[in-house]
This record gives sequence, structure tokens and C-alpha cells, in this order.
Amino acid sequence: MNLKQMVGIEAATHVTDGMIVGLGTGSTAYYLVEEIGRRIAEEGLSITGVTTSKATEKQALGLNIPLKSIDEVPYVDITVDGADEISSDYQGIKGGGAALLFEKIVASNSKKNIWIVDESKMVETLGKFPLPIEVIPYGSQQLLKKFEEKGLNPKLRLTADNERLKTDSDNYIIDLHMETIPNNKVKQLASWLDTLTGVVEHGLFLDIVDTVIIGKGTSPETINVSR
Amino acid sequence: MNLKQMVGIEAATHVTDGMIVGLGTGSTAYYLVEEIGRRIAEEGLSITGVTTSKATEKQALGLNIPLKSIDEVPYVDITVDGADEISSDYQGIKGGGAALLFEKIVASNSKKNIWIVDESKMVETLGKFPLPIEVIPYGSQQLLKKFEEKGLNPKLRLTADNERLKTDSDNYIIDLHMETIPNNKVKQLASWLDTLTGVVEHGLFLDIVDTVIIGKGTSPETINVSR
Repeated sequence: MNLKQMVGIEAATHVTDGMIVGLGTGSTAYYLVEEIGRRIAEEGLSITGVTTSKATEKQALGLNIPLKSIDEVPYVDITVDGADEISSDYQGIKGGGAALLFEKIVASNSKKNIWIVDESKMVETLGKFPLPIEVIPYGSQQLLKKFEEKGLNPKLRLTADNERLKTDSDNYIIDLHMETIPNNKVKQLASWLDTLTGVVEHGLFLDIVDTVIIGKGTSPETINVSR
Repeated sequence: MNLKQMVGIEAATHVTDGMIVGLGTGSTAYYLVEEIGRRIAEEGLSITGVTTSKATEKQALGLNIPLKSIDEVPYVDITVDGADEISSDYQGIKGGGAALLFEKIVASNSKKNIWIVDESKMVETLGKFPLPIEVIPYGSQQLLKKFEEKGLNPKLRLTADNERLKTDSDNYIIDLHMETIPNNKVKQLASWLDTLTGVVEHGLFLDIVDTVIIGKGTSPETINVSR
């Protein structure tokens, strides 16, 4: 069993009958969704899934996981998702898979958020992983210029075919290659990004995670975050 | 000549040869665009237009106004647009025509912004005009609930056919019927809206306008705003 599979299965133990469960996107969340599908099929688990991307929706439907939109449920009990980086004070960067907008919409309506990662994602400060920003196509060149002027090293994300990547909401992603964002500057950066016209959402997920499950060695480590 | 036409023509006097001009949306901006079209045809005016909506784009193309996207110009020299309300300290609400996102993208990249309005739009405090919020469809019911809980009287905007209105970016508009937003609370409200996941943009246009041209009586009044 690989580390991603190990934490996916461990996270699934937090899911119990009757829950409304936010299903994350990406290579680690993949195993969580698979495990929930297995428990539905083999153990008769009864849950409602709320997906965070078209990719996860497709996977979940293939596993016969009953799905509802975030707008058809009163709230989400628990959301399990991956993260691209988690700082020593448990703030995160997400969006490597370009699903940050729906992931944040589901996370912000969840009573509890669990992030599942392998050890390599645990860092002292964020920023080595490029910070994804979802932007409206109209005006995106102006935003690139603004980020460039600020020295934030922006790059418009392209697909494997060198086309401009489009998100599930038909927006673009600009990745900020900042190398390091000091922990005490993270909130300031998020607030500034929030004010920018044309920025739909950014990949800083702050004060959101309640539990981090880390794949390391032979068993996962669970950290309950107190804020 | 009606008041809207009067201020549209007056605003066009600020447009000179060689300028890159942001062309607003709505019933007052309509006359500005018409007048620029007339001056191109009759006076040989040479400008480049940057539109703020599909509707204005269509009108401008019909008038043979040369157009570029906001991403094809280095900046905009001057943008002329309407406003739905302007407070005594020259902050504005826009978005009645559902074009607030592109309007704000163009405005925020403009060296100078002119708003053209009739007298009825000049108010002491904002808020009698419902504040439009452009939101991502996924999660919009959760945002409605959140606004409701805050007592902000939200209503999802519908079309004449009772369908959910879709913006040029395929988002929804939620109108907040707040009745009054005290001038000293406007920035706080804007900042809070900026932080909400799923909010793409809001109709508070703060510290943006440089000149207001007001249609009243027989001649327009021009106010230069100093900040």
C-alpha cells in the first residue's frame, strides 16, 4: 500500500453512516473516494457525497456514491481533501489540480475539514509550491503584469498541449512562483489577493483545516489542529 | 435632448484623438458610445474602444468603433460609465445591468474614470439601490443563506422569463436589498464581501471615480473628485 492510499483509507474512518461528505480532488483524495466506494459496496455505508470537481464527480458516480450539489445540502459534515503544502502553523496551499475554487466552496461550508497528505507536503513556510490564483480570462494579462511588477513571478498555467488551462468554471490559473511566503505574511497576501478585481479565488486556505493526516513510514500520523 | 443623452455627449468631450477609451454599459453609457461613433464617422476621431459587456461590444461594432480587449492594450486612458448610485463622498454602486465584473476590470485598469448619471442617482448614502454581487453558481444557495442570516435581504436576480440571470461570465447575481449602507461602513462591507468564497465581484466601486457628470436642468454639472 502506498502512502497516499494509506492516508486515504485512514481518513475514511472519520466518515460514518448518514454523513454528508465533501469529496476532495487529486491523487491522494482519489484513494479516499475509492475507499468510500468500497465501504458503500461491501459494508452498506450510507452517505451523501458532495464533489469538488468534475473529475471527482466522475469517479464517485463510477463507484455508485450518491451525490448532491453543495446547494442541495444544508451543510457538509466533513470534507476530506489533499493539500499541496501545509505550513508549520497549518495554513495550506491548494490548487495544484486546478480545482481550488470548488474545493474552497465546499470546504468553507463544511463543519470539519481533513487534509490528507504525504510527508513531503509538510513545510515550515508556504511558497515553494507555486500559489495558484483562479482569474477571469478578461483582464488576465493585466493581472499577470500587476503580479510581475510586484515581483511575484506569475506564470499562466498551460495544459500539456500548451493551451491556456481552463478551470471547471472556464477561468484561467496564474501560478505565483514566490519560493517562500513567511508565515506572518500569509494573511496579508490573502487579503490583498481578495481585493483584486478579476481574481476569483486564490489557493491560500487559511484557518480551514481541523485535522491533518500524514502518510509516513508504516502508519499515518493524525494531527488535530487547535486554533 | 434627454438628460442621459446630455451627459453622454458631455462625457464624450473628454475623449480626444489617440485615446484608449473604456466604454461603459447601460442606458446612459449608451449615449456616450453613440456620440463617439458619431464623432468617428463625422469628425474623423481616432480612438480605440475597450468594452465592458457583450451588449456594448455589439453597439460599438455597429458604429464602427475600433475595439480591443482589455488584454490587448497597455492601459485605458479614460473610461466612461454609468452608475446606479453615487454617495455624497463619491463612492458608487454599479451592476444594475449585470455587467459589474467587466466594468470593474476595465475601470481598475483605467487612468481616469468618469461616471455619467442623472440627478436621481446622487444620494447621501448608498443602499437604496440593491447592491449586486456576482457569484459562482456552485454554492450560490449557501451564499444566499449566509446573506440572509446576516440580515442583508438577498435576492437571486431572475430574467424576465423567471430564469436565473446569467452574467457574461456565466455567473449569477445576488442583489442585497439593504436600504442603507452608512458611508463609514462601506469599506468594511466591501472587504467582507471580498473574503467570501464564491463571490466573484461586488458592485461597490470604491475610490475609483475621478469625475462625475450629472444631468440636471438644461446643462450638465461636472464634479472633479479629489481624494
